[in-house]
Amino acid sequence: MALIVQKYGGTSVGNPDRIKNVARRVARCRAEGDQVVVVVSAMSGVTDGLIKLAKEISPQPSERELDMLLSTGEQTTIALTAMALHSLEVPAVSLTGAQAGIVTDGVHSKAKIRNISPDRIHEFLQEGNVVIVAGFQGQTDEGHITTLGRGGSDLTAIALAAALGADLCQIYTDVDGVYTADPRVVKSARKLNEVAYDEMLELASLGAKVMQSRSVEFAKKFGVVFEVRSSLNDNPGTIVKEETESMENVVIRGVTLDKNQAKVTLAAVPDHPGAASKIFKSLAAINVNVDMIVQTSSHGAGVKTTDISFTLDKPDLPKALKKLESLKAEIGFAEILADEGIGKLSMVGVGMRSHSGVAAKMFDTLASNEINIDMISTSEIKISVVIELSRGEDAMRVVHDAFLGA
Amino acid sequence: MALIVQKYGGTSVGNPDRIKNVARRVARCRAEGDQVVVVVSAMSGVTDGLIKLAKEISPQPSERELDMLLSTGEQTTIALTAMALHSLEVPAVSLTGAQAGIVTDGVHSKAKIRNISPDRIHEFLQEGNVVIVAGFQGQTDEGHITTLGRGGSDLTAIALAAALGADLCQIYTDVDGVYTADPRVVKSARKLNEVAYDEMLELASLGAKVMQSRSVEFAKKFGVVFEVRSSLNDNPGTIVKEETESMENVVIRGVTLDKNQAKVTLAAVPDHPGAASKIFKSLAAINVNVDMIVQTSSHGAGVKTTDISFTLDKPDLPKALKKLESLKAEIGFAEILADEGIGKLSMVGVGMRSHSGVAAKMFDTLASNEINIDMISTSEIKISVVIELSRGEDAMRVVHDAFLGA
Repeated sequence: MALIVQKYGGTSVGNPDRIKNVARRVARCRAEGDQVVVVVSAMSGVTDGLIKLAKEISPQPSERELDMLLSTGEQTTIALTAMALHSLEVPAVSLTGAQAGIVTDGVHSKAKIRNISPDRIHEFLQEGNVVIVAGFQGQTDEGHITTLGRGGSDLTAIALAAALGADLCQIYTDVDGVYTADPRVVKSARKLNEVAYDEMLELASLGAKVMQSRSVEFAKKFGVVFEVRSSLNDNPGTIVKEETESMENVVIRGVTLDKNQAKVTLAAVPDHPGAASKIFKSLAAINVNVDMIVQTSSHGAGVKTTDISFTLDKPDLPKALKKLESLKAEIGFAEILADEGIGKLSMVGVGMRSHSGVAAKMFDTLASNEINIDMISTSEIKISVVIELSRGEDAMRVVHDAFLGA
Repeated sequence: MALIVQKYGGTSVGNPDRIKNVARRVARCRAEGDQVVVVVSAMSGVTDGLIKLAKEISPQPSERELDMLLSTGEQTTIALTAMALHSLEVPAVSLTGAQAGIVTDGVHSKAKIRNISPDRIHEFLQEGNVVIVAGFQGQTDEGHITTLGRGGSDLTAIALAAALGADLCQIYTDVDGVYTADPRVVKSARKLNEVAYDEMLELASLGAKVMQSRSVEFAKKFGVVFEVRSSLNDNPGTIVKEETESMENVVIRGVTLDKNQAKVTLAAVPDHPGAASKIFKSLAAINVNVDMIVQTSSHGAGVKTTDISFTLDKPDLPKALKKLESLKAEIGFAEILADEGIGKLSMVGVGMRSHSGVAAKMFDTLASNEINIDMISTSEIKISVVIELSRGEDAMRVVHDAFLGA
């Protein structure tokens, strides 16, 4: 008898019929003799509806009260899911985050899980129940309701799997698993059977939006092996786990394209100490996340200057430009250039560490397809290049096929 | 500095604008230096919407899970009300029933309040907050969420007023208070300045649907003086309190008409012991509430028989008739007659105890208006008669004017 934690997202529980489907899936699992803990999100659209209601009352609602409000979304789903299981004659009990013993810090709207007291869940499981836990929420030591922020229900499932010592944690979503590339763009993309935490982290942060990084980080920290799979079919999904030796035989796990970046170039920045520091500190102060940074010497006569280029999230561009404009005189650069027509192409794989010539092969593949590389950034298990957005999908296809093609 | 408990029903918090109105009213009260605890219901329509959702999942949802589901309705309102107060720069904190320390028994969907631990509310009040508590809900000692059933938010307010030792408890509703008769029917009806608990109880049970009896009973038991008043204007309402000597000077406090009763007559019931007992036990067993009962001897020849008439709630009539039909042979009565065209007219007043001739005057008033009396039932502070439904409103007017007219 295994103990399984299953998590279903907002789309999977989006209406009464879908909730009944989830119940059937849970019932089947239980009929095989397993103990099941189910974590559910709010029905799709519910959280947005509640936020809209709050905004009608107050443009900037207090985060404590917003948590009080939003936590009703998952509470609704757990009750309905329990009812659907009862209809199938499966004993089931729903628990809010607080009731499930999920204790968080007091940072409303993005609380961190401090600890979980799983006694109550164990009791209900012992009595033969399926236990349904509200994702995304917990309570502080003082009894205030908190929410965990984006991707919070995944986090609830993984943290519960750790606290309960579960044998398996399944994250049900609307995709079949993690792919070597976006299958809508790259026809030859394949579903991965397994992926290492670090690879999953890079893929998540690179725009393959299967899961939020923090849930994967949590799983890595506590060694929780989990499976990402579809709630719409019975196909096996992708297992996310600690890196194994056999994983290193594969050079590249996947290729991603991030279309949501913009590039800023500051031309002719006087080359004296502190200029770059001032620029990036100012941007950090207004919560602009800078990703890739490249600095090149310029060959003008007279005062020595450099060009500094960097990428940032497209929506942050206007406020970044405004801030930079205000620094222009003080720092003394000549010009600000912005380019929204870029894409960031990345290859990820733990096998990169032990294979040489990977970057060269990537650059060569792009060059032979006449795709120009604008910026380059590398880490231990990742190579990213900035290219023209209009060639982004072509680039993804040729790189994917060079490294991962059949 | 007084401590005031205010309760606002579903209509008063029915949309964001109305919630803002409630917030303004609370803010005004607090600006006068008082401490305020606010109890709110679910926004009107929300509870019904949730029940509908549950029925789409399961025709007979478990009561524990229904409580889990329905309690989100009030939780939504408390968060929005707190936000509305923050917008007016009034510090406010929302608390679910569980967080407010409301402990109930485990009878889901109609739980009874066992005790209230008000420490947390006191703390938040001390810190200068308005405290907003979800009505209608609590939790068991084991931490299960429960709801209190119909009228539960009134009960929450009155129980909190008792536990907190509040100076005043105000029940805000969509009527101005308690009237001597339904003002839509009786033009000369007046709002009462005060009414005794017992009178309020009889009025509530007689169809003057301002409040549920159980809340009034609770207030009586714990001596909580409360005011029923409108959330739509600033008119003073009706104070409900212990009977005083001066109340006895008024013979009749109010006149009500219950149009929701039906009359059943069993003709020629054999007059032997146990027949009536069997009939009413059988009806109780299928949850039919019988109200007035009249038994008259019949004058047929041969075996001695009686006619038994009684009234019951109109919606219960079909199942009652079916049950009675099944008993016909066994008990041996001749015929079942049902009449849905009746009304029950009642007069209530503690002054009746010390005034004689009240019933006679009532019967006389009806007779002189050619309104026939079908059944009569009296208690210490109430006289009820069953009359033809089509004459019900006329009867209400003439009786009201005879006893309470200007």
